[in-house]
Amino acid sequence: MKTLRLYELAGAEDDRRFSPYCWRIRLSLAHKGLDFEGVPWRFTEKDAIAFSGQGRVPVLVDRGRTVVDSWDIARHLEDAWPGTPSLFGGGAGRDLSRFYVDWADTVVQAGLIRLIAADIHAHLHEKDKAYFRESREARFGASLEEVGADRDVRIVEFRRSLAPLRATLKRQPFLGGWTPMFADYAVAAAFLWARAVSPFKLLEDGDPVADWRARILARLDETAAGFRAYPC
Amino acid sequence: MKTLRLYELAGAEDDRRFSPYCWRIRLSLAHKGLDFEGVPWRFTEKDAIAFSGQGRVPVLVDRGRTVVDSWDIARHLEDAWPGTPSLFGGGAGRDLSRFYVDWADTVVQAGLIRLIAADIHAHLHEKDKAYFRESREARFGASLEEVGADRDVRIVEFRRSLAPLRATLKRQPFLGGWTPMFADYAVAAAFLWARAVSPFKLLEDGDPVADWRARILARLDETAAGFRAYPC
Repeated sequence: MKTLRLYELAGAEDDRRFSPYCWRIRLSLAHKGLDFEGVPWRFTEKDAIAFSGQGRVPVLVDRGRTVVDSWDIARHLEDAWPGTPSLFGGGAGRDLSRFYVDWADTVVQAGLIRLIAADIHAHLHEKDKAYFRESREARFGASLEEVGADRDVRIVEFRRSLAPLRATLKRQPFLGGWTPMFADYAVAAAFLWARAVSPFKLLEDGDPVADWRARILARLDETAAGFRAYPC
Repeated sequence: MKTLRLYELAGAEDDRRFSPYCWRIRLSLAHKGLDFEGVPWRFTEKDAIAFSGQGRVPVLVDRGRTVVDSWDIARHLEDAWPGTPSLFGGGAGRDLSRFYVDWADTVVQAGLIRLIAADIHAHLHEKDKAYFRESREARFGASLEEVGADRDVRIVEFRRSLAPLRATLKRQPFLGGWTPMFADYAVAAAFLWARAVSPFKLLEDGDPVADWRARILARLDETAAGFRAYPC
């Protein structure tokens, strides 16, 4: 067994990983060059992570210590693995990184879920399908199919919501500057989530956001290459 | 004459300063404890800043060197005044701060201008009124009065657009952590701009964003107290 174990949300196939929160941690572990075992997990497998005291992934087990929540895991990795490349860039970088998490959650992912909810459902393990449909339809107040029905229109609004990201990426290759940092992973993970389950084209060719996504993926070949994804 | 001179957009009265870009620099200068002369300037006084090679404020003159653009001025201050409190917190903090500027520009200020455009006009110096009305109405494709007519409805959307800021400020007192940084000023300046010219209530009582704005103002009494503003 490896030193680090990460429980990650998976679809019907073990190698379809599609939680944005888990991708943040997979990218962070790769950034730090830490070898780990990624354990596929489904929504309904609550027993498998009961040891963590809660029911969501990511769950990281690091040398016997269990950490949950992507932000807490990132901070844990930064502190627990000194000498590895920093996720926050020292100084005030850690505190300045939090807003990126909240922007990814409330703008990027909140926009994306309405575009890809039906695609997610199509790629779920059979045992997760009823849970996902019921919980998400209750949240949306509409069927998964209804939520995505106007996505050809909504995509315009989604792309517009990326304006601040686009503006920054016109000036610098990564949110962290010349190299990607946790801030980049917090946001890019949303696109890795989407491409794992959805063929829907999210970004126009030539969009600086698309170029940045490609740069992130190129950097992370070793951790992302083995997983199922649609071309983007 | 003081060592530092900052040309700032002013209204009918010299002590009504209402450019968000200028407020970013006023807050940054106060943060660094730098004494400076704030020179009131109007849109139509192009001659007064012709020496800067362009026609917008803020313009900073620092010991004979002229710097324009709020982001470039902030970076200049950080480099040119070592030993003063940092605006970026070292490390990757500078690169991580850029997104806050772009978020303030494309979300916060883009939302605010539609709410307060007519209020701005009402507080302009007479010689600026025609220029402002014509240039802004051309940009909006509508009269200043039309743009603001539905602000009681639009305010809901504006408050919602602050969701990521609100989420971060529920976790930490400032975007920069325990103390304000340039990231805070980049965003807070938008609210200092608004309160200088508009009585319109932007934030609900108890909103963590309102509490943060109050903390910023409390920290900056010495630089903001002398200027005209509506209560908020």
